[in-house]
Amino acid sequence: MCHVVTATISLHTRGNTDILDITEQVAGSLQNSGLGAGILTVFCPSSTSAVTTIEYESGCLADLRRLFDEILPTNRDYAHNTRWGDGNGHSHVRAAILGASLTIPFRDNRLILGTWQQIIYVDFDTRPRTRQIIIHMIGE
Amino acid sequence: MCHVVTATISLHTRGNTDILDITEQVAGSLQNSGLGAGILTVFCPSSTSAVTTIEYESGCLADLRRLFDEILPTNRDYAHNTRWGDGNGHSHVRAAILGASLTIPFRDNRLILGTWQQIIYVDFDTRPRTRQIIIHMIGE
Amino acid sequence: MCHVVTATISLHTRGNTDILDITEQVAGSLQNSGLGAGILTVFCPSSTSAVTTIEYESGCLADLRRLFDEILPTNRDYAHNTRWGDGNGHSHVRAAILGASLTIPFRDNRLILGTWQQIIYVDFDTRPRTRQIIIHMIGE
Repeated sequence: MCHVVTATISLHTRGNTDILDITEQVAGSLQNSGLGAGILTVFCPSSTSAVTTIEYESGCLADLRRLFDEILPTNRDYAHNTRWGDGNGHSHVRAAILGASLTIPFRDNRLILGTWQQIIYVDFDTRPRTRQIIIHMIGE
Repeated sequence: MCHVVTATISLHTRGNTDILDITEQVAGSLQNSGLGAGILTVFCPSSTSAVTTIEYESGCLADLRRLFDEILPTNRDYAHNTRWGDGNGHSHVRAAILGASLTIPFRDNRLILGTWQQIIYVDFDTRPRTRQIIIHMIGE
Repeated sequence: MCHVVTATISLHTRGNTDILDITEQVAGSLQNSGLGAGILTVFCPSSTSAVTTIEYESGCLADLRRLFDEILPTNRDYAHNTRWGDGNGHSHVRAAILGASLTIPFRDNRLILGTWQQIIYVDFDTRPRTRQIIIHMIGE
């Protein structure tokens, strides 16, 4: 018989494609839920941040940042900036393509992740922010 | 105790990276479900359309379209077109990388979205179409 | 009343952006579950592979590979390679942006997929591997 448990994680980010390893905090929310088997959804209620998995080591993070700097550079015109003047046009598009949602299965109250696989939160906005992200679990 | 509710939304699109704000229709499906807390999955049963979240304002939409025009231009050769002659090779790859599925948590029968965050359906195909998308909810 | 069922699929891949159509194996896991309606999550417990949907025909696959070769070429420097010397820096970033997780609704014990839409597993690593992927179902 399945139940729903929701938690919130608070993060302090520096912005500008700051990449945080949130694996331990997500696993902690799962432990607190007491659920054995099910799925966990990490969701960013934000239009300038996103979530995915990667091997969290400085090389991979630099390579991921370079990709975004190349396909969505900060130093060019964006229609969003022209219209609103807030300078984070690149942040919105980067977040939209990486995605605000990630769903991971769990078993025995543990996330099923690969050995070198961590959950990352990427804040593409252009300033430090305090962020709330949603950890939603459903399972038995 | 969790239950499953499924709904279908019908959309009329113009194609060619037409971007529709479907937030209200998705929220309406959730209201009709009567479910309080759980997760909602928006799924595109299609290989030339995709779903994500963004701030739905004309600047962000133009910037998102420009990204796709740059990394997957319409005016170049695609192996899919060479083989099948249907001219929507770019549509398939754009859809595959943006993704057919989006999962959003809800609480008190309301989607947990950011203030500036809308759910968008992007039709990458090269002609107007009527589309059916799946709204799947599971919760209690 | 919802239940959780988990299965594992074993895959033999050639690496180097090898793309496998796993639709039948995923549908088989769903059939074995006996569940009628719900959602199914395909998850890659790996940092160098990913999952999405596409029309599985050689043209689309070639076009998808070309995109990755253009935005994340194999023959350039990656900070991951400089640091660890293992040559798969591009694999990590490709996997991170395509995504390790895909959620698909099902009904009457059948996946709700489009006519030309298949589920693909993409192994971006640089050598043949045996991979375990997780098929997680929740439903009633």
